[in-house]
Amino acid sequence: MARRSNADMEKTKQLLLEEGVLLLQESGYNATGIQEIAASASIPKGSFYNYFASKEDFAAEVIRYYASTSLATWRKALGEAKTEDAAQALYASFLTAVEKYRCLELKKGCLLGTLAAEISEASDVCRVALQESIEAFQAVVTEYLSLGQASHTVRNDVEAKALAAVVWDAWQGSLLRMKVSKSVDPVQQDLKILFDVLLRPQTK
Amino acid sequence: MARRSNADMEKTKQLLLEEGVLLLQESGYNATGIQEIAASASIPKGSFYNYFASKEDFAAEVIRYYASTSLATWRKALGEAKTEDAAQALYASFLTAVEKYRCLELKKGCLLGTLAAEISEASDVCRVALQESIEAFQAVVTEYLSLGQASHTVRNDVEAKALAAVVWDAWQGSLLRMKVSKSVDPVQQDLKILFDVLLRPQTK
Repeated sequence: MARRSNADMEKTKQLLLEEGVLLLQESGYNATGIQEIAASASIPKGSFYNYFASKEDFAAEVIRYYASTSLATWRKALGEAKTEDAAQALYASFLTAVEKYRCLELKKGCLLGTLAAEISEASDVCRVALQESIEAFQAVVTEYLSLGQASHTVRNDVEAKALAAVVWDAWQGSLLRMKVSKSVDPVQQDLKILFDVLLRPQTK
Repeated sequence: MARRSNADMEKTKQLLLEEGVLLLQESGYNATGIQEIAASASIPKGSFYNYFASKEDFAAEVIRYYASTSLATWRKALGEAKTEDAAQALYASFLTAVEKYRCLELKKGCLLGTLAAEISEASDVCRVALQESIEAFQAVVTEYLSLGQASHTVRNDVEAKALAAVVWDAWQGSLLRMKVSKSVDPVQQDLKILFDVLLRPQTK
């Protein structure tokens, strides 16, 4: 068999990462086998190790790939939001993500939350990748809530970073309930309470 | 071998459920094998099926067992709380749970959150057990926030049930971050922001 070119190798690795996001989102880490991962990119199982040292290393790379691509999409949506109100732009971007989950038939929650629950304890490589990725997402929420505070659409009696932590955690928790209830209602309801009431400046 | 008495059988089943909580909390569903479950109660692997029809049925029973025992402990702690303020009693009970997680070296998150992420999609039996259990927990939070609203220590511009959903989801999300960061700080910080600020009545 002819040796595959570097460009071909890169293309296959990219495909493995993309398929990895979908497989790990739906089935989690332990229920996804290397055989299945390899098959998703039409390569033999043994070739998997030409691309990744282990399933654990693969998962850590998938986490970073998911985080970087999702963050880029999110930043783009936020930049294009047709509103002067940073908090409302953030709210709208979360609602867009909810619609995406609905279209995926609610099978796939957030990869970060799903894997945080399953493998933080078993894999330190993945735990660190998850921690860094979650911090990058929270930084975006913090940034937009800070802008909201500056324009007085977000309460400023709590630091934006602490508000962002509650928003992120409620988001992740509601995505768990989405999977359990097979409905996006828990997610939409939490977002409404947070953005329309709890995050608002107190009435004077 | 003499046939085991019904009392012995009951005792072993109880032990399997108790050990099952610990195993599933730490490793999740897919990474926990029937061999390991059986060994935890010192029974041969084949005997497992005298107690449960399948690993899936076992997990669903573990979920219900965990929910009913945890709820009983929680209700007792809430009943004994030395405060007239229902919301503060609820806050204190969450902080007690955080200390318990700290003592378990942060290896074990909430069983409900961990399994919700991992197996909601794969097992409908477990998904329904999770849904019912989570609703039972949320009902307690709703009850205490309602009491807080009645005594004007909790804001009443949002229904208690909707506030309880945000509290529960932020709690679950922060437990995920606890596992990822190996620290209870995210949990304690969210609880403080929620109970000391966001849930408080608005200043007039």
